[in-house]
Formats: sequence, structure tokens, C-alpha cells
Amino acid sequence: MLNPGDLVMLVCPQGKRYIRKIREGETMQTHFGILPHETLLQAGYGEEVLTHLGHPFRLLKPSLYDLVKMLKRRTQIIYPKEIGYILLKLGIAPGCRVIEAGSGSGSLTTALAWYVGDHGRVYTYEQREEFFRLCGENLGWSGLGERVEQFNRNIAEGFEQTNVDALFLDVRTPWDFLDQAVAAIMPGAPLGFLLPTTNQVSSLLTALEQGPFEDVEVLEILLRRYKPVAERLRPDDRMVAHTGFLVFARHEGRKAKVRKEEAGVMETESTDPADIS
Amino acid sequence: MLNPGDLVMLVCPQGKRYIRKIREGETMQTHFGILPHETLLQAGYGEEVLTHLGHPFRLLKPSLYDLVKMLKRRTQIIYPKEIGYILLKLGIAPGCRVIEAGSGSGSLTTALAWYVGDHGRVYTYEQREEFFRLCGENLGWSGLGERVEQFNRNIAEGFEQTNVDALFLDVRTPWDFLDQAVAAIMPGAPLGFLLPTTNQVSSLLTALEQGPFEDVEVLEILLRRYKPVAERLRPDDRMVAHTGFLVFARHEGRKAKVRKEEAGVMETESTDPADIS
Amino acid sequence: MLNPGDLVMLVCPQGKRYIRKIREGETMQTHFGILPHETLLQAGYGEEVLTHLGHPFRLLKPSLYDLVKMLKRRTQIIYPKEIGYILLKLGIAPGCRVIEAGSGSGSLTTALAWYVGDHGRVYTYEQREEFFRLCGENLGWSGLGERVEQFNRNIAEGFEQTNVDALFLDVRTPWDFLDQAVAAIMPGAPLGFLLPTTNQVSSLLTALEQGPFEDVEVLEILLRRYKPVAERLRPDDRMVAHTGFLVFARHEGRKAKVRKEEAGVMETESTDPADIS
Amino acid sequence: MLNPGDLVMLVCPQGKRYIRKIREGETMQTHFGILPHETLLQAGYGEEVLTHLGHPFRLLKPSLYDLVKMLKRRTQIIYPKEIGYILLKLGIAPGCRVIEAGSGSGSLTTALAWYVGDHGRVYTYEQREEFFRLCGENLGWSGLGERVEQFNRNIAEGFEQTNVDALFLDVRTPWDFLDQAVAAIMPGAPLGFLLPTTNQVSSLLTALEQGPFEDVEVLEILLRRYKPVAERLRPDDRMVAHTGFLVFARHEGRKAKVRKEEAGVMETESTDPADIS
Repeated sequence: MLNPGDLVMLVCPQGKRYIRKIREGETMQTHFGILPHETLLQAGYGEEVLTHLGHPFRLLKPSLYDLVKMLKRRTQIIYPKEIGYILLKLGIAPGCRVIEAGSGSGSLTTALAWYVGDHGRVYTYEQREEFFRLCGENLGWSGLGERVEQFNRNIAEGFEQTNVDALFLDVRTPWDFLDQAVAAIMPGAPLGFLLPTTNQVSSLLTALEQGPFEDVEVLEILLRRYKPVAERLRPDDRMVAHTGFLVFARHEGRKAKVRKEEAGVMETESTDPADIS
Repeated sequence: MLNPGDLVMLVCPQGKRYIRKIREGETMQTHFGILPHETLLQAGYGEEVLTHLGHPFRLLKPSLYDLVKMLKRRTQIIYPKEIGYILLKLGIAPGCRVIEAGSGSGSLTTALAWYVGDHGRVYTYEQREEFFRLCGENLGWSGLGERVEQFNRNIAEGFEQTNVDALFLDVRTPWDFLDQAVAAIMPGAPLGFLLPTTNQVSSLLTALEQGPFEDVEVLEILLRRYKPVAERLRPDDRMVAHTGFLVFARHEGRKAKVRKEEAGVMETESTDPADIS
Repeated sequence: MLNPGDLVMLVCPQGKRYIRKIREGETMQTHFGILPHETLLQAGYGEEVLTHLGHPFRLLKPSLYDLVKMLKRRTQIIYPKEIGYILLKLGIAPGCRVIEAGSGSGSLTTALAWYVGDHGRVYTYEQREEFFRLCGENLGWSGLGERVEQFNRNIAEGFEQTNVDALFLDVRTPWDFLDQAVAAIMPGAPLGFLLPTTNQVSSLLTALEQGPFEDVEVLEILLRRYKPVAERLRPDDRMVAHTGFLVFARHEGRKAKVRKEEAGVMETESTDPADIS
Repeated sequence: MLNPGDLVMLVCPQGKRYIRKIREGETMQTHFGILPHETLLQAGYGEEVLTHLGHPFRLLKPSLYDLVKMLKRRTQIIYPKEIGYILLKLGIAPGCRVIEAGSGSGSLTTALAWYVGDHGRVYTYEQREEFFRLCGENLGWSGLGERVEQFNRNIAEGFEQTNVDALFLDVRTPWDFLDQAVAAIMPGAPLGFLLPTTNQVSSLLTALEQGPFEDVEVLEILLRRYKPVAERLRPDDRMVAHTGFLVFARHEGRKAKVRKEEAGVMETESTDPADIS
């Protein structure tokens, strides 16, 4: 049985899909008839419910992929193929505190909110009011908004948070905000960036080379779909060839106050540095 | 400040990395000197600690990417580029219950355990004792084992769980286990598969076409790295060209007992099926 | 100065391109005025000519790429990215005799005719009369038809030629025609195939494994374009993801009548088989 | 039967391959025994010949692919996947005159010489004497040297030829030599470039934007091989991910002396600019 507050994906008789949050007392008006949320509450995921006209709607549990795909968008969004990899590289986990800028349509925001869970926190910054609002609407729709704090602000002024676990910048000139980023993150924390052009990647690399960063990586992720036909398996004719370049770096952390040179220690010749227990 | 049970990634003066769980009273013996875990507890992520010989070790918070990369492996592992996408498509969230087979070296197991959080549960099946043990060792090492139940068993006998949120099969002949999968999942739940050859993909598609499945997708993910040099930006000379094909499907769910035909309802002409509120 | 029979690519004031063969006495009627071929003969490649209304048409020497791109097509054509590689693998050179089936719209036919030159010969087979004619029209248009012999015939009956230098099959079931292919080629000659699905590639490989073939290769060629903007260099958003899989093989040739075993020769231990002069 | 001067690819009993030009009176010393060229002359392509010890060597007709693959190389060479496409875009045909710089190991030189035929001409420039010599050796070995003129010279001084059909620059700073290129080519001729880094591509695009060029394209070609096993068809585990970016442009040609404005012609409204006969 479902509970108020649960997200459901409803599939209408014609196959079209809608994601809704169940709220007691609410009612859906559809072209196939009326569907009270009470009906949804008595069904379970994977079942069909009938409108008052007897038309069946299927009730599915939406995945994060479904959510991201169905966001209202007015910007180029960050795609699932990038989102998944970003999560792993940034070490996003239940309970994490993470900063993101800009919010855009909120696709990465949604994913971060999904994975930090009820005990984590996403701080998302967006300068343009139009996208600030759109991101807010999308978060309200998905019911993940309680895990997110939105800021309608230019990040040149800096971030309000400190010691966050990770930070992601999807802005046009991320190299202008590295000081602000460093001030906001935990020492040694991972940073991520998404950039459409090679010129931007070069500019960012130039800035990252000034430090205090390490483990700099540049990569792109390509997803190639196949026509799912057993007897005629073949790739799709066309594919998305570019969404952006991902750049990752790690803050280099703080140096120990006492260095080995000062401690007067000789570097011993280690025959096997891997021998650590 | 860190706490007992926290994971740390230690970087030795030569750059080599080690992941350890902090346990009170323990001590690391290194070629650069002794490092008591007490020292780690008094430091924080991003800081340097000194061995008794004065050599600095950097202390970082490992990401899931770091964990997966440093697993002990004796099999082809599932790579981060695939893991991230699998998480989104399977709808893995804090609190989920998910089944996986086979465990292999435990890379996907680790990722699932990481994201289901303390309130979720991963059930991982592995027939070969050697990999069953290896996966267990890796889970012990990463400290995520408490979220996982391991089964050293042939999945032809079926899974012990029912109503799980999602299921992933990384086995040679997944088409032989679709009945067992359906018996274990929640109606309408997502399924994922990883297969190295096109022949296997065709065989699986043939089986999935028998139902009860829908939303079948076949795809592959390619990751292309660049040399991170601002003035000479260019892709790496070589790349991984294939790890496997990902296949996703969704269980079609249960049909409503009362169908619209039986209810005697005329199909109304809907001018806009998207008009749903 | 140009000569009758030369191919020219004309670029109209609005940028649209046309390829024509210059013929004395002919006249082009255009929306920008009349252009007598005599005018073209007095100009040179790279120059502009004026219609009787004074509108400039640019006159360029078409490349093979231009020709292939502007063929009239009613089939999936073989693309330049594949054509170039096919030429190298099949060893096409001025003077070669080569067989191709089916002709389709004649894109590979055109390329083969282009490179075998006046002393080579292309034999192209096409069962469907509609494509047989289309290929003929395209060859007439490009002026390369004199190097080509067209056959409107099912290749199950075999090829008329023997001892050709290379053979390419772009047909649905090439595995049905390997005997015919072997009968037509020079011993040891290269064969090429284009196939859209993985199932077809597997079927062909199964047949090739029966021999008499060697050096079997399967590959695909991907072409990724960039937006040519210096300050915002980035790949195009979308790309062609699949045209087909290329398969190449070599006929294994004829065995020597006297084998070393019969000659009573001991295999000598060669310390360096590369030492050959 | 073969003739003196023909190229043959010999396959030794262990599978190793050698390309040789047949010359009357010569003799090959091999670890498997002596093989007089007279023996080769009496055999044909696709046959086996026996050494004086009775070991069989197979005799094949080498393709351009074989030649390029077996060149002696001391530089990054231009690969067949790029060579094929370059040929089509540059409009290389039997009889063409084409300039290339730098020669490098001579892989593109070899391909150009192969396709321009006995009536064409390749002019190849190389500043470094070491590569100038290597290219010469490779051309001697392949027997294509008679179609090529080599220049050991810095192209900053310009090219000796004029009115060539096409020009290819594989040098570090091609933007420095565009004036020289324009002076050497036929008006409207195609130009090609190979560059390893995105920064170089941007620099070249900046220069090309100054004119007199048009039809600028940037692209890269990826070749992905499959393990050719019918029952377990799958891509190779690794692939070459980058050799270089290809850039193509066309010289914009010469403007007509009398322009339509001067001719006092009104631009007529053309309903269909494609209507040209």
C-alpha cells in the first residue's frame, strides 16, 4: 500500500506518463475520467487503477531517471549519463552536504537531493530568477525540495556554507569562482565542473594549475543506444554526440604544520611502499 | 574531527593511496614509520598526519569512485561509468531493497550498499565460493557490509526475497532466470542486466519479448578521457572501448481486475491526453 | 582552362551547389539567368562566371566527397567515412578490376570508378531494376560510367568475371554468395562486406569460418564533427551513430602442390624469423 | 604470372609478413631457406612458393592498407582511417598533382602516390632530414617513389609548385603557412590539416576565418574493432581513442571581375533556386 507523500508515475491508457505526489483528498481530472488520490492509496506500485469511467491507469514507482527525464526544462539539462558519474566522483552519499551552481532546470539538483537523503543537504545557487523559480517548481513537483536550500544569487559574492563535502559548478566561467569554492568546501574535498567547449576546459585547467588542486581529470561520457530487436540488433542511427566535458579536481588539503624536513628525519629507502598494514 | 568507523583514504609521501576504516587502538605499520589510528582521529579530512618518523600522510575522505577503484578484484568489474547509470535507471535511493547476482568482486554491490544507506538492504547472490568470499572481503574492507546480505547459491533455485525495489543480473545467461527475478521483485519494478556479447543481448531480448516486461532498452556507455593540459588539450591516445552492453526493462505490473470493456465504458475522444491535473 | 567532359561544381549566388559535366553547345537555364557551357570552358576552376543577367556562379572542381554527397539516392548509401577505408583495405588502385554487389544508389560504385581510373574496371551487380537504373543515372551524371559495367541480375547465379582484384558485397545475406565470390576473385584477394545488424555479422562470421578465408576483421567507423568556431570549439550536438559494420576477409589462396612434409625437410629452429633479406 | 617491379607480400610459415618488390636476379635469404625472385615470377598472387628447403611462403598482392601498416616508422603516422577520408575530401584522383607537408614517415605520401597513379604527382616537404630520409626509404621500398618529389626544406620559404589540385598540412603550426599554401594551389582547391590538440584546432580556425577560405570543417574519425567470433561477437576491450583532429577548408576562389551590381542587374525573386537545368 502507498502512503501520502509517495511519488507515483501514472501511465494513461495511451502510454503517456505523469509523475505525481500522492496527497490525501486530492483528485486527478483526466481525459479518461476522474482519479481520486484515495484510489491510489489503496493500490500498490505495479498495479492498475480505474478512473470513474473505468479506464485503467498503471501505477509505477518512478526511478530517478524517470524524474530527471520528466522535469520541466528551459535550459540544457545535465543528463543521466553524466549525473551518475558525477555522483560517484563527488562521493555523494546519504547524509552529505553539497553545493551546486547554477541550478538551471534542476536536474542535477534533483539527483543530489535524491541521494543525500533526509539527513543530507543540497545548497543550489542560481543567479537568473527565471531558472531559480523553475528549479524550485521542479523540486516541489518531485517532493525533494525539503532537502534543498535555493539561493537566487551571484556566486561571485561567495557561498554561505562552509565545510561542505563536495561542490559542482555548471557555470560559464567557473575559473572565476575557485576561491569561493575553496572557501566553502571541506579541505581535500572533490570538485566537479561541466563545460561545453574545449576553450572553457583549457581556461579552467589553466586556473586549476595555479592550485590548490590535484587529481585533475577531463573526460566525456557517450551513451549509445541500440534498437532492442533480438533478430536485428543494431545501434540507433543517430545519437547525442556532445553534452559537455566533465572536469574533476580535488582540493589538495592542508599541509601538516611540522614537516619531515624540520623533524630531521632521513628519507628511508623503502623497498616496497605498498607494504602498509 | 573523525570518528571510529569512518573511512579514510591515506596518501603516502610517494602518492600511493590506501583506504582504511578507523578503529580505536589500531596502528598502521608503514615504510615511512608508524601511524596510530589515534592520530587519524585527531586530524580531519584534508589534513596531513605525521608518522613517528615525521613523514606526512595525507588524509582524504574517499568517494565511492575511490572505493570501487581500489577494490581487490579477480573478475571483470562493473565500472563507475556503468554503475552511475545503473543507479539512476534502477531507482536506487536511500532505503531501497535491491537484489544483485552475481556478486563478482563486489563493485556494484559496494555502490548499491553505499546508496541504499543504513535503512536499505542489498541482497547479493554468487554461485562461486571464490567470488562470494572476495566480495565479502571487499565489503568488510569498505565497512559497507552491514547493509548487505550475501548468498553463496545458484540463483536457479530462486531468490529468498520478495517485493524488492529493483534487481540487477550480471550473469552469463540471465534469460534463464527471468521467472526467478519476477518472483522476487515488486510489480512494475525495474530490472537491469550487463552482458559482454551481442549474441547474449539478442538471447535476452528474445526472452524479454515473451513478457511480462516493457520499456526494454539496450545501450552502452563510453568514457573518453583527455590529457588535462591547458595548452595542449587532447583526448588520451587509447581508451576502454567495451565493458559490456547494459539492458534495462521494467516488469509490466499487474492488470486491474475490472477492465474498461467490462465496465461498459465508451472510449471518449480526448482532444489532449496530456491534459491531466 | 577547362575542357569538354570536365566535371564542374557550380555554386549559385545563394550557395546552392550543382555538379555538371561540360558539354559543348549546351546551356544551363537558371533562376539567375542563362549560363552557356562555352562560358564555363573559358573560365577555370576557382573562378566566377556570370549569367546573362550578370549573376555570379562560382566554378569549383568537385571532389569525390562532393560527388558522393550529391548523388541522387533512394537507398541508404555507403558513406565517405566507410568508402575511404574500404578503398585502402581492398587495395583499390588505378588499373584494378573490382566487383561490387548490390549497386544501390551507386555511391561505392562511383568511388571505385573514380579510383580505378581509365585503365581499371568496376563490375556492379544489382537485382532490383529500380536501383540498377538509379545507379546508371548517377554514373551518367558523374561521367564515370565508362569505367563501369552494370549487371541487373541476381548474384546467386554467379558473377561473369574471374580473377578480379577485389570484391565488395553490400547485400542482405552475403553468406549465401561466398562460393560465387571465390569463383570470381584472384586467389588471395581481399573481400569486403557491409552489414547493418550484429546478427548478420555473426551469420557471416560463421560462414567465413568454414573457409577458405583468413584475416577476418569486423569494425565500425564513427565520424564526429565539431562546430568550427575558434572561440567555442565543441563537438556537434548529435552525430550519425551507425551506418553499418564493415567486415573484411582475405581469400586464403592456393596451397603449393609440394608441401614441406613431402619434401622430407626438417623444420629448422629459427632464432629470428624476421631475419629475411 | 607476376612481372619484375610488382609488389608482393610474402607470408612465412609462421605467419610473419614481408613486402618486397620483385627484381630479376635477386634472391631472398630466409630462416626457412632461399627463395629466388625467379620463383616468385613463375608463381601468381594467392599461390604458395617453396624455398630451397621446401618451406612454403604464401604470395599475396599487398593492399594500400598493408603497405601503410608495414612502413618503417619513427613518427606518429597518419592512420588508414584518416587517410581514406582525406583522399575523398581532397578529391585525389588518378592524374592529380598534390602537395603534402611534412612527410613524416611517409604514410600519407604513400597513399597519395598510390592513388595519383603514373600520371599524377606528389610533392612532399619535410624540414627534418631524418624524416626526409625515412620517407624516401619507405617510398623506395614500396616502389611508389617515381610518382613523388621530395623536398628537404622549411615550408616557410614557400612551395615550388603552383596550381596543384590539393594540399595537406600535417605540421605543428599550419596557420603560419596559409599564404604559402594559397600561392601553391589552384583557385578553389581543397586544403586539409591534421592536428593533435584542440588548442591547435582553435588557432587554425582563427587563421582560416581571416580568409580566403570557406567550407571549413572539423572532425575526428574513430575506428572500433570487434573480436570476429560468430558466437561471442563483441567490441575489442580497448581502442585507439585519438590520433588527431582533421580540418578541411576550401580556397574561396577568385571573384569575377564584373559583379552583378556593376552590371546593373536587379536581383530577381527566384521561387525555386534548385530549378537549374
